[in-house]
Parts: sequence; structure tokens; C-alpha cells
Amino acid sequence: MEAPHLLMVAICCLSLLSSGAAAASAAKVGGEFSYDPCSDRGPKHWGELNMDWGMCKNGKLQSPISLSKWTAHLNQGLGDLRRRHRPANAYLKNDGHEIVVDWDGNDAGSIKIKNIDYQLVNYHWHHPSEHTQDGKTFPLELHMVHINNVTKNIAVIGILYEYGPLDPFIYMLERDIQNLDIDGGVEFLGQVDPRDVKLGGRKYFRYMGSLTTPPCTEGVTWTVMDKVQTVAPYQVRLLKRALVEEKNARPLQKINGRNVSYFDPYSWVGSVAAE
Amino acid sequence: MEAPHLLMVAICCLSLLSSGAAAASAAKVGGEFSYDPCSDRGPKHWGELNMDWGMCKNGKLQSPISLSKWTAHLNQGLGDLRRRHRPANAYLKNDGHEIVVDWDGNDAGSIKIKNIDYQLVNYHWHHPSEHTQDGKTFPLELHMVHINNVTKNIAVIGILYEYGPLDPFIYMLERDIQNLDIDGGVEFLGQVDPRDVKLGGRKYFRYMGSLTTPPCTEGVTWTVMDKVQTVAPYQVRLLKRALVEEKNARPLQKINGRNVSYFDPYSWVGSVAAE
Repeated sequence: MEAPHLLMVAICCLSLLSSGAAAASAAKVGGEFSYDPCSDRGPKHWGELNMDWGMCKNGKLQSPISLSKWTAHLNQGLGDLRRRHRPANAYLKNDGHEIVVDWDGNDAGSIKIKNIDYQLVNYHWHHPSEHTQDGKTFPLELHMVHINNVTKNIAVIGILYEYGPLDPFIYMLERDIQNLDIDGGVEFLGQVDPRDVKLGGRKYFRYMGSLTTPPCTEGVTWTVMDKVQTVAPYQVRLLKRALVEEKNARPLQKINGRNVSYFDPYSWVGSVAAE
Repeated sequence: MEAPHLLMVAICCLSLLSSGAAAASAAKVGGEFSYDPCSDRGPKHWGELNMDWGMCKNGKLQSPISLSKWTAHLNQGLGDLRRRHRPANAYLKNDGHEIVVDWDGNDAGSIKIKNIDYQLVNYHWHHPSEHTQDGKTFPLELHMVHINNVTKNIAVIGILYEYGPLDPFIYMLERDIQNLDIDGGVEFLGQVDPRDVKLGGRKYFRYMGSLTTPPCTEGVTWTVMDKVQTVAPYQVRLLKRALVEEKNARPLQKINGRNVSYFDPYSWVGSVAAE
């Protein structure tokens, strides 16, 4: 009966992250962790830091993983990602590990995967990227976190960024990010439209993984967009400056024989393979 | 009079690397170093491990660095890279830190930069990449090391690789790489044509930097090709397996106001800027 318990911890964490004022202390719930590979609170030790974080060590379906079109299984049956986001009141938060844009309640819409709705919870950033594509590590990765309100299952969309023209969504938040306290700040943003982050295309990777932070809960449906978008170097520096640690990316986890699918609406090969 | 002394150490190291039988112990000359960020012999401490390695700590023009077309200075005056490589006898070596293809003597031709010839010394690989492009880190980087026989100045060409179709040059060496000892092996390859590694295009980055391994000698003319080539994941694993350490990439070094140039023969902007 370990799994339901871990799930509760995950839901607890997610709801803390989505509850405005309480978020500042979310990172401290159950003890602090670190991204420093040399620290005894670093990623290798997450599973030992808290009795509810065992999946970080013992899980077999952990995230992030290495992605590649060359090894993924083309699956046209997946179909286009259906996104029904809408503007809603949001908060900007620094939970000590991540800068988070948090939508209150269930107002910001949902995505639909295999006919199941997942409500938008938050957007947050990791630097450098957690997932890799064709072996490449990118300077930034955005996670769009969604949860199904009945099953409490989680679905995350990941977007990778390389250096180039600035990202308009971060641009909109720059002054607020600058104003955030390093030790966990919260700022009301007013209405924020989640659609201001474009998905950049229709191609994506899909696999079953986990949260990339403790408690590393599994059963997470991952969608990582194929299209790499751009962010200005100063914008990544801005996100870094607001956090205590130089990096907030969990190292790559083992695939352990998992099936990684790839959706490409333009591929003829796939439409045959999906039959 | 520090500089000439460091240069002598660099030349000594390079000549050891290029001298066949002696290469097995090259990595131990002057004491061993490590790529482990948590080790007291790791990159942060290289400058303290040996009195001749001070540049690793005190140098202001160190390599590798972060490269980006968006911040580099377009300079059409650089012109095409002139490559006059030819087949010659070569050795495959494991110096403990790198897998090296080493051409004996000065038989394998040269490159010409600003009317100066640099003779080919060796090709060797780093994983993951040492240089980054637009913030991206790649799974592999090839260094083509050249030296001017009179001035002893060094010029290195770097090529970045992402996962994809296999690299034909590594493919040719796979059996030999498998046969290499982990503790420093040498194998005679017979005639190897350096031109079997294509440059992949004409666009490149140019800057003044250093060796990326101790003694971190400066005055190195770096040319990093813009085109990212592909390598199969199993080929990178093969190179890794032959080495003791999981990674052999030095972390990014500070730019310190250096001018990074970019050559793009197809750009009109540049041909004006170069006037």
C-alpha cells in the first residue's frame, strides 16, 4: 500500500504549490533537498532524506529521461495534444527550488489526453533542461503541470529552450521575477493567459514517468514537445538569480525498458505503424 | 617569464601524446587530474595540483566557452578554413582521460589560419561536449589538434555531435576502441585519412582560448564548426566505456570580454561588416 500513500504526498505538494500564501514554505515540507551533486542532500540521496521520498531511489519509472526521435516509437494514434487553457488569476512564486506561475483553483482550463481531462495547476522552469533531446542538454525547460481532479493523476507538458530571441512569456514576468525574494516569495500577477506560451508545433514525445522533484511520484503522463523554442540568455540569468542554487535539474534517470512514443502528424510511416 | 615555461609544458604534453609508446603514461606526467566535480582533483582544483598548471586557475583566456551566433561578432574577413590534411600512419591511444587518434611526425598535413600553417597532431573526443552552442550541451565533441612547428602555437578545430545516424570515422575505429586497455593502451592503426572526418560546412566560430586539459596553456586559436554532426548513442557509450571517468568535459570558463567571431560565407550583413 505504498503507492496511494506516495500519491497523497504528491497531491499535498501540488496543492501547496497551488495555494498562494502557503507556497513559500512548500519546499520545506518534509525537509529540504538540494541539486548539488556533491551534497549529502543531492539527487543521489533524495530517497533517503524523507520516508515518503522512497520512489526517488526505488522507482523504476522515473523522470527525466533521454529522448530521441531515432529510438522513440512513432505512434500516430496519439493524435494532437488538445489544449483548452484560458486566462485566470495567477501568482508568481519562488519555492526555493523553482520559479512557479500558479493558477488559483481550476480556472485556467485543461488539456485532454486519451479522453481524460487534466486541469492546469502551474508552469515552472528548470535550468538547465531536465530532459535531453538527441543527447543535447538545453539551457531551460518549462513544465506545464496538470492534474486530474478525480484520479489525482498528473500530466506534464515539457518545452525545451535554446539561447536566441527572448521568450515573450518570461518577458511579461521579468519585473515580477526581479522583485521575488530569494527565500520564497509570492506575488499576485492578476490575469495570466497560459496560452501566451505556444507549444511551438504538433510533434511531441510521450512516455510514463514521475515528478522530477521529491517525492518523485510515478504515474505521470509526460508530453515533451519536439520543437525547441528560444530564450534570451539574460532571461535564464534572471530565473537563476532568483534561486539559491546554480542549477535545478535532476540528472537523467534510467529508461528501464519503457516505451517512449513520438507523434508526428506529417509522417506517413507512422500512419501505417499505428494501424 | 611564466608564459614560455607553460608553453614548454604544453609542447611536452603534446609531443608525449604524439609519440606512440610514451603516450600511455602521458596522463600521469605531472600528477593525475580528475573530471569529478566533487573530487579534490576535480576541475576547480587543477591549478593547485601542479606548479605548472597555474593557468587552469589564473588564466583569463580559458576554454571551453559558451558560443552563440546571437552574441558572436560576424566577421567575413576570416574566410574559409583551409585544410590540407592527408592520410598517414596513426596510433589509437587511451591516455586515461581521452581516446586519441595520433598521427606520427608531421605526415598528416596541416591547416592554414591567417597565412600560418599548423600541422595536425591528433584527433580526440570529449563527452559531453566542452563548448556549448546557443546554450546547448552536446553528447560529444571532437578536437582536431594542430601545432605550428616554429612558434609552437596551437590551433584546434572543434566539432559538436548530437545523437542520430552513426559517425563514419568512429565506426571505422570501433573494433580498435573495444580492444583498448582502460589503463592506457596504444594500438597501431596503419594509414588513417584525417579527411574522413568532414567539417560539415563552412560556418564556424573563432576565438582565442586555451587547452581544456592541464596545463591549460593559453594562446590557442579555436575554430568551432557551426554544423552539428551526428553520432550513434552506442558509439558514445563505446568511447565512455574505454575511459575510467563517466565524463571528460571541463566546465565552461568565463569569456572575460573576449571577442568571439563567427564566419558565415552566405551572410550579406557580414560582408559589409568586414569592410
